[in-house]
Amino acid sequence: MGPGENATPEENEMAYDLGAAIAKQGWVVLTGGRSFGVMDAAMKGASDHNGLTIGVLPREDTKGASMHAQIRIITGIGSARNNINILTSHVVVVLGMAAGTASEVGLALKANKKTIFLNQDALTIEFFKKLGTYKVVTTNSVKDTIAQISDFISMGQIR
Amino acid sequence: MGPGENATPEENEMAYDLGAAIAKQGWVVLTGGRSFGVMDAAMKGASDHNGLTIGVLPREDTKGASMHAQIRIITGIGSARNNINILTSHVVVVLGMAAGTASEVGLALKANKKTIFLNQDALTIEFFKKLGTYKVVTTNSVKDTIAQISDFISMGQIR
Amino acid sequence: MGPGENATPEENEMAYDLGAAIAKQGWVVLTGGRSFGVMDAAMKGASDHNGLTIGVLPREDTKGASMHAQIRIITGIGSARNNINILTSHVVVVLGMAAGTASEVGLALKANKKTIFLNQDALTIEFFKKLGTYKVVTTNSVKDTIAQISDFISMGQIR
Amino acid sequence: MGPGENATPEENEMAYDLGAAIAKQGWVVLTGGRSFGVMDAAMKGASDHNGLTIGVLPREDTKGASMHAQIRIITGIGSARNNINILTSHVVVVLGMAAGTASEVGLALKANKKTIFLNQDALTIEFFKKLGTYKVVTTNSVKDTIAQISDFISMGQIR
Repeated sequence: MGPGENATPEENEMAYDLGAAIAKQGWVVLTGGRSFGVMDAAMKGASDHNGLTIGVLPREDTKGASMHAQIRIITGIGSARNNINILTSHVVVVLGMAAGTASEVGLALKANKKTIFLNQDALTIEFFKKLGTYKVVTTNSVKDTIAQISDFISMGQIR
Repeated sequence: MGPGENATPEENEMAYDLGAAIAKQGWVVLTGGRSFGVMDAAMKGASDHNGLTIGVLPREDTKGASMHAQIRIITGIGSARNNINILTSHVVVVLGMAAGTASEVGLALKANKKTIFLNQDALTIEFFKKLGTYKVVTTNSVKDTIAQISDFISMGQIR
Repeated sequence: MGPGENATPEENEMAYDLGAAIAKQGWVVLTGGRSFGVMDAAMKGASDHNGLTIGVLPREDTKGASMHAQIRIITGIGSARNNINILTSHVVVVLGMAAGTASEVGLALKANKKTIFLNQDALTIEFFKKLGTYKVVTTNSVKDTIAQISDFISMGQIR
Repeated sequence: MGPGENATPEENEMAYDLGAAIAKQGWVVLTGGRSFGVMDAAMKGASDHNGLTIGVLPREDTKGASMHAQIRIITGIGSARNNINILTSHVVVVLGMAAGTASEVGLALKANKKTIFLNQDALTIEFFKKLGTYKVVTTNSVKDTIAQISDFISMGQIR
């Protein structure tokens, strides 16, 4: 989960690498499905490495969908679809921050989802730790993020 | 789309065959994802023939999900998820009839989706034709249903 | 619940009278909230007689909302809001028929809501009775509809 | 918007006062509708002062609903209903903070809603200002909050 239009080039680059790394593990990338920013980059990274991608789209049609969203769930429920993103994900990785992303983190904490803050600043980490300390894990690289998810899996902590 | 708990053995059998036939075409089966009736049977038919299946689940977790739903979209929006089933489908095939199924047909006609009534009785066909004649196509076999979908594709009528 | 743009003048007139009669009972009118057809007419009837009206709107804003929808719930979930209409209603009265209306009746039967078919033709009644006989009650006038709802209330049958 | 079970006594007290002040203005209080915390207290404050209250409930029934929610919108869409809370509100006042509340603030900023942070700590304000500075207004008392909303209204800034 991360920003669309407002993502920085560095965030997009890391999202691409994260998508690629997820694909190499044989895992599935799920995003909000739009053709911008972290969503688009992560799905491109996965698609370029033979990974499966799911885009959970806000509109009633596929307008604005990323061409890298292989499976397109057309929800027609707008930003309410953020909760579907969270509920459907086994682990939530947060890369970059925007208003929609913040709503997804809130919903993830509410739903007790394992949530990894990748490369987040101290302010963001501190704010969300106040809301659910034990659910928030921080990493600073794609490699550590994959290792963390592998740990969750091996410890049976992912529902 | 079709009944869950109330599906007849004949409907389940045909749903299995339909799922298998869809898989053989390389298409994807999407259902409401639950472990009963037409949903379950169609996804089992597809899974048994190397097809991809998507279950769009009503609950906030996977309880009650079919083991044949390979990709599980956890919506948490109850029967409101019926509209996601419809919007996400390229073609809607209706096999058997129940209250939830009727709601899906209504939503399909509302969304101008190509809708195929497979093996429906005269009463059902007449009722829905009154609501949107030109959108309703009827078939009586899996083979004819696949042929009809192929026609839609070759004529570029599927969004 | 009933058609928007496709409602007949007779349906709109009866919807107005129904809204007025509901208001006189001190009950609340809830509709899909749009500025057309049965929705609009029922809320106008209620508003003109000091009744309270709630419009459950499909869009992310109030565009297309009836001016007679006093309380406007802005859902942003499109036709998925039909299920909110049903779940929120204590009794569902169906007047006229269209694709969206059919989906609401299906959802009402699914949710075990008391559902009154006002002035529906034999085909419609027969189709839905097949899906849930004991939940379907038919009336032919506003007066009988109000009497039927009063009966439901006095028998404690309305949740 | 604010916490349910985790609200502090001080937050509940201020929520009660806010609900009462809103009612005295003739405005409507809308909350998530549950029988806990800030939601419950704000609706009780309004109800005790002849105000109108709307509870937008997450479940498919009224279980857990506040007795002070006069109009109960039964959404059946779980935490996805947070977006309905935001879209339906003319102004969002945030009092206290929890995971669900954070998701609502994110959705409010996303939807460009006027959002007032009442009595929030510096960390919370700083975090959300980073996401949408010009949309965030801070107040420290019920009185100032009402004055701020009145300003929004007189300046025609509320949609």
